[in-house]
Amino acid sequence: MTSGEPSVTLVVLDLVGIAVFAISGALVAVRKELDVFGVLVLAGATGLGGGFLRDVLIGATPPAALADWRYLLVPVAAGLATFVYHPAFGRMERLVTVFDAAGLALFCVAGALKAVDYGLGPLPAALMGMTTGIGGGIVRDVLAGRVPVVFRGELYAIPALAGAGVAVLGLRLDLPTLAVAVGGAAVCLVWRLLAVWRGWQAPMPSGPASV
Amino acid sequence: MTSGEPSVTLVVLDLVGIAVFAISGALVAVRKELDVFGVLVLAGATGLGGGFLRDVLIGATPPAALADWRYLLVPVAAGLATFVYHPAFGRMERLVTVFDAAGLALFCVAGALKAVDYGLGPLPAALMGMTTGIGGGIVRDVLAGRVPVVFRGELYAIPALAGAGVAVLGLRLDLPTLAVAVGGAAVCLVWRLLAVWRGWQAPMPSGPASV
Amino acid sequence: MTSGEPSVTLVVLDLVGIAVFAISGALVAVRKELDVFGVLVLAGATGLGGGFLRDVLIGATPPAALADWRYLLVPVAAGLATFVYHPAFGRMERLVTVFDAAGLALFCVAGALKAVDYGLGPLPAALMGMTTGIGGGIVRDVLAGRVPVVFRGELYAIPALAGAGVAVLGLRLDLPTLAVAVGGAAVCLVWRLLAVWRGWQAPMPSGPASV
Repeated sequence: MTSGEPSVTLVVLDLVGIAVFAISGALVAVRKELDVFGVLVLAGATGLGGGFLRDVLIGATPPAALADWRYLLVPVAAGLATFVYHPAFGRMERLVTVFDAAGLALFCVAGALKAVDYGLGPLPAALMGMTTGIGGGIVRDVLAGRVPVVFRGELYAIPALAGAGVAVLGLRLDLPTLAVAVGGAAVCLVWRLLAVWRGWQAPMPSGPASV
Repeated sequence: MTSGEPSVTLVVLDLVGIAVFAISGALVAVRKELDVFGVLVLAGATGLGGGFLRDVLIGATPPAALADWRYLLVPVAAGLATFVYHPAFGRMERLVTVFDAAGLALFCVAGALKAVDYGLGPLPAALMGMTTGIGGGIVRDVLAGRVPVVFRGELYAIPALAGAGVAVLGLRLDLPTLAVAVGGAAVCLVWRLLAVWRGWQAPMPSGPASV
Repeated sequence: MTSGEPSVTLVVLDLVGIAVFAISGALVAVRKELDVFGVLVLAGATGLGGGFLRDVLIGATPPAALADWRYLLVPVAAGLATFVYHPAFGRMERLVTVFDAAGLALFCVAGALKAVDYGLGPLPAALMGMTTGIGGGIVRDVLAGRVPVVFRGELYAIPALAGAGVAVLGLRLDLPTLAVAVGGAAVCLVWRLLAVWRGWQAPMPSGPASV
């Protein structure tokens, strides 16, 4: 999810984000009664899908994950672990939600910064950051045959867009990259955790839909 | 949807097409009871999805829409307007259908011309034009969890392919680009409107399918 | 599905693989009662989807199929033939399965070799080979509104990954390309046919999934 020579900290955080997203994909696959391969593909698609979407759209191909085997082994390992220990993972749903929020925070900022690196303007870069964060979950749900949960009242995309927007704005103001990344990720993380904790929902259309 | 230095007329037509497609995506999202974010994403995916698909396939990344904020604001505005005023928009279905046919006509020609610009041969360029016209609706339906309407008897893709084909053929015959674009768009528009007005359907397989 | 100056044999095999995959896509479309256009799009998406996915991910755009009209005409012809003669094609399911296994064997090896050509390492290249083989079927199922069969117990992806892996390993050991390709394809073909013949299934998660 990063370009250039990322620090060890960033790589570790990145891999943790991929692992957590991969676990969420594998849990959906287990609930849908898919086989071990379905579990692994949904783990990989959820962990790497957002970054793949971003890299294909901004022209950064092949995606970073295809040039670094660690990015491929992490979702496989997370998927296999979920395949075997899914009852335990399912019970830790609260913990998975917190890690997932951390993954979202990290991905939206890393995605936005990479899009800026590739010459995109502030608004497209913020949207690409959001896409990096939520894309994996959308691919997961389409492959699992359900309408993406991110469209159904869950407050998930707005925090990602906010975090990416803060990071892009910070860069525009010539703030140091590290401060910008931490600030953007914090905005996304806190907003997302508050939404989970307080049960905040995204607004729904009012009134009956015409048919 | 255009390359080089497009005229003001073309940009306006392009944005109208995106807006109409975005409204159709937002109306589907409202009927599926998605939240405001689902409405916006389906608006954006329907308005821009066809062009994104084409640009990724012909290697024109990042897509034009990511380099021009107007292409991003139009679907957001159309999506928000539909979110708020969906009962009124739903009642204007006839008008939306006409505008949608206009969007289809425009997109299939613009897509085909851009594919020729990128060095594709006549047949692939015509197919890319059709993809530009129908791709947004396909992405919309996959995200909304339904089989794309364009596959279910609606006469929609053939007019788009015909319009794109006329444009590509015209270029081959060294006719002026403007004449070629207007001719292709007219073929698509008239055919599509006649299909809606007369209730023309695409042929279905005959006989029972073996299971 | 090949780069450089492929031999006539390879092109013929490639076109046969595309035709068989296209027939499988068209049969699904007929069973879903899609119209003629839905049949053609599902034929094209199944025949070419895996190669398109691979080419977009490794940055080989536009995909080879868009630069060679034979690659576009084959799925159209296969789709039209299935549209007309689907009862006969449906009865030949056993034969279609054998040809499909041959297509899978060919695509996984050709995809892996192309990914190596584009500079990918062994593990990503093997995964891209598998993606080339199974991607078309996944796109087909997503467009047809069903969970991909490759995730539901069918032993299909593992033989493709094995075949691609053998080919990549062979290249690493500096074996001649032809031997490597034949060996990889044979591993995939034999494993897949044995799985069909013996009814081998991929492992499923054990125990009830937590909700």
